[in-house]
Amino acid sequence: MEMKLKDIAELCGGKLSGDPKVQITGAGDLQSPNKGEIIFIVSPEYIEKAEKTNAEAILVPNGTAKSKKPTIEVANPKIAFALVMNKFVPEPKPQPGIDKTSIIGKNCHIGNNVHIGPYTVLSDNVTLGENTIVESNSYIGQNVKIGNNCRLFPKVTVYYNCIIKNNVRAHSGTVIGSDGFGYEKQNEVYHKIPQAGNVVVEDNVEIGANAAIDRATLGSTIIRSGTKIDNLVMIAHNVEIGSDTLIVSQVGIAGSSKIGNNCILAGQVGVGNYVTIEDNVIVGAQCGVPMKKRLRANEIYLGSPVRKIKDMAEIFALEGMLPKFFSKFKRLRKDMDELKEQVDNETKGSR
Amino acid sequence: MEMKLKDIAELCGGKLSGDPKVQITGAGDLQSPNKGEIIFIVSPEYIEKAEKTNAEAILVPNGTAKSKKPTIEVANPKIAFALVMNKFVPEPKPQPGIDKTSIIGKNCHIGNNVHIGPYTVLSDNVTLGENTIVESNSYIGQNVKIGNNCRLFPKVTVYYNCIIKNNVRAHSGTVIGSDGFGYEKQNEVYHKIPQAGNVVVEDNVEIGANAAIDRATLGSTIIRSGTKIDNLVMIAHNVEIGSDTLIVSQVGIAGSSKIGNNCILAGQVGVGNYVTIEDNVIVGAQCGVPMKKRLRANEIYLGSPVRKIKDMAEIFALEGMLPKFFSKFKRLRKDMDELKEQVDNETKGSR
Amino acid sequence: MEMKLKDIAELCGGKLSGDPKVQITGAGDLQSPNKGEIIFIVSPEYIEKAEKTNAEAILVPNGTAKSKKPTIEVANPKIAFALVMNKFVPEPKPQPGIDKTSIIGKNCHIGNNVHIGPYTVLSDNVTLGENTIVESNSYIGQNVKIGNNCRLFPKVTVYYNCIIKNNVRAHSGTVIGSDGFGYEKQNEVYHKIPQAGNVVVEDNVEIGANAAIDRATLGSTIIRSGTKIDNLVMIAHNVEIGSDTLIVSQVGIAGSSKIGNNCILAGQVGVGNYVTIEDNVIVGAQCGVPMKKRLRANEIYLGSPVRKIKDMAEIFALEGMLPKFFSKFKRLRKDMDELKEQVDNETKGSR
Repeated sequence: MEMKLKDIAELCGGKLSGDPKVQITGAGDLQSPNKGEIIFIVSPEYIEKAEKTNAEAILVPNGTAKSKKPTIEVANPKIAFALVMNKFVPEPKPQPGIDKTSIIGKNCHIGNNVHIGPYTVLSDNVTLGENTIVESNSYIGQNVKIGNNCRLFPKVTVYYNCIIKNNVRAHSGTVIGSDGFGYEKQNEVYHKIPQAGNVVVEDNVEIGANAAIDRATLGSTIIRSGTKIDNLVMIAHNVEIGSDTLIVSQVGIAGSSKIGNNCILAGQVGVGNYVTIEDNVIVGAQCGVPMKKRLRANEIYLGSPVRKIKDMAEIFALEGMLPKFFSKFKRLRKDMDELKEQVDNETKGSR
Repeated sequence: MEMKLKDIAELCGGKLSGDPKVQITGAGDLQSPNKGEIIFIVSPEYIEKAEKTNAEAILVPNGTAKSKKPTIEVANPKIAFALVMNKFVPEPKPQPGIDKTSIIGKNCHIGNNVHIGPYTVLSDNVTLGENTIVESNSYIGQNVKIGNNCRLFPKVTVYYNCIIKNNVRAHSGTVIGSDGFGYEKQNEVYHKIPQAGNVVVEDNVEIGANAAIDRATLGSTIIRSGTKIDNLVMIAHNVEIGSDTLIVSQVGIAGSSKIGNNCILAGQVGVGNYVTIEDNVIVGAQCGVPMKKRLRANEIYLGSPVRKIKDMAEIFALEGMLPKFFSKFKRLRKDMDELKEQVDNETKGSR
Repeated sequence: MEMKLKDIAELCGGKLSGDPKVQITGAGDLQSPNKGEIIFIVSPEYIEKAEKTNAEAILVPNGTAKSKKPTIEVANPKIAFALVMNKFVPEPKPQPGIDKTSIIGKNCHIGNNVHIGPYTVLSDNVTLGENTIVESNSYIGQNVKIGNNCRLFPKVTVYYNCIIKNNVRAHSGTVIGSDGFGYEKQNEVYHKIPQAGNVVVEDNVEIGANAAIDRATLGSTIIRSGTKIDNLVMIAHNVEIGSDTLIVSQVGIAGSSKIGNNCILAGQVGVGNYVTIEDNVIVGAQCGVPMKKRLRANEIYLGSPVRKIKDMAEIFALEGMLPKFFSKFKRLRKDMDELKEQVDNETKGSR
């Protein structure tokens, strides 16, 4: 695979400086690209570092100064680079076709150009849209609807009645629609509350490996469009996550909580029941959001229990100063006692 | 599906106020029930809210005042509602039968009315009790015993020699009996300690999706009856968990720890090795219980490392006051220095 | 199965004290061994406890005093005991052979004595070394290379292009090579950055159940030889983990971080992006290592955010003293105010 620099500039909608006929043979890593590869830098300050590599050309942000190597100026070099990667190292995709070992239930509606991998089981009344891929050893429960252009990697499980819209990707081991954790104690024994709702995953969502998204008790657990969910994330029953939100790996969100649009929940965050997180909130790694708490729009939070970043950063810093502070306090106590003695002595002396 | 209100009252053992012939068509959510649906409230204080909905009737706690809508008084409305849900939205269940694509090892004992799903593998000497369901793409290791009325959802894995008793449910992706994490370092290299024990899961346990329960090194990792384990929980080798305990999602329990009866470990709790948690203990979300620590019966704990709730709540509050406190301290230091100067000056002056 | 004590001593390279003809029938647990079993103690101080059990003989550390029971002195009783366990309770292993229900892609190279379990799928161009076991319901992507003497338990997933070297074990549900979590936001929408690299798992690595190891964006996510990874661990794209390091369960390591050799990351540790952890570092349970931080070789760290153990242990202790400290401070403030008044009065009086 080779592309002329000129064609790459066109692909990215960028402005080329340098020989348009240079042949590019791959997409390289800034740390150690090979000859022939194109790399990218996110900021003009890395241009010297990039020039010292073996890279053949550089994707740079608009306004980056002329370079010794050919450059292509673009609005967002990372997104331009993604386009280049899709040319040079495209993701392998299974061919359309229904493997003869797959099992297709009654009344399934299978769109055009669908791939169903070996040993995958579709229960009754499943709908798969066009160009959708369900890879090997997967299980799709009854009445599940999956839209167009989805890709379920091997060993994805979708329980009955769940709905997955278009352009959704779910990685291996992920479980969508398992029972919510609902029990009621009576006479020292837990009784199961049936979990009869479903999960709805909207367009353009991607879900990582070995995540678990529980079905609602009644109604739906909802993941809105464009949201990205990382590996080993836990989403409980009746949770609603807004659009274009990032849920980083190992986050856990407890029952009935609502997460807004354009939020980021960093790794290992825990969110209690009935929490509300408004739009554009960032919750730092390992934060704990207590039950029923509301996090305000456009704020950044840290700590467990969470506080606004300004407060929590100050507390973290002061915690670090506690040892010094305790000795300062002891010193003050001592000074105080000495002064008291001095004053008492003076008083006595002056009588 | 329709039921007369009279029949629902009978089903729940409750006291009906209102027209017994009202037709109920579903179990509804308090937030937005449809016409024809019955809902429940957990406390009389919600009765007005419930009356304003479209619900046809309300399950209420005993002693709730008369309502404009028909009510059924019961001891526990949530449990009554669960009975109603089981009528209106029963969990779909695969029919008894052994799928022709399943693989059954030698000397397996399969009870009556068992379902074994497609592409499920039973190794040699497996026992399955009556009415048990092992869904598709599951793997059951050799010598495993599974009791009556169990349901293993698709893609559950049970390693060799493990024992699962009656009425146990395990959701997709869960692994029971993987090796404990046991190594011994010698000459800078880790040597594996064989993990030759098993896992015993007693009656009425439910395990969520993608959980992992390790086999004991010798003896058994034990989950006692009635305990409920949520998604993505990690239980290490030789752990013992008592009866009727809740282990919420993403909890991790390290090797050889003992958890009592009727405990609650909230989400993302971490329990170190050789910990003892006595009966009726509640451990708050994200708590860390240090190695070998003992948590006392009937107590509630918070924090990492954990402290009793009273102490930890105070510490959390005081941490929040640290910034103000540090400035108060500075002020006191200044006052002190000024007073010292004043005293010294007076002393000088009075000489 | 029976072994003479003499033969066990030989197996372990240990020094026998007692009747060499004693028959040993099993490997026992120090807590409650059966008659006929051999047990081990890690330190001479446990010898009395061991003597009071039903055990037939005891593996003891070199230099342990004579006992009433037969003993075998060895350098490391735990490792000696592992050898004994491998004799008495060897791990069951599937026989070599390719199950007729497995699917083998084009151009696969399968070594001698390989086992491929039922319903396992090997994509095109897969290489499996000698004596390697890939159990049932597993999926191996195209171009994957797996070395000799590996064991993949049921339901392991390896995505395309990944490399697994020799003597590697991976437990059920583990996913190797899923996409890294890489997106770039433009016009309020996340664009996917292709994840075109792979994962390289070197010799003698063991990976627990339901772990997830993401492929690199470009280049490789690397787990070096001898490292052990526990259940439900998350390793992000482009992470590198050194040799002989322990990653305990539910640890999460974010993108591009480097972990050294001979480290221990205890349970539920979270490591941010671009972190460097040097060799021989121990990170305590539930620690949080902030983005880009460097942890110094040979140090132990605690807390979230992490600090060196000495500092953090002091802070934890001082946090516990905060309530007492706040009242001490109040007392000091009061003493100060009283002294000030006293001084002011004296001054007035002396005028």
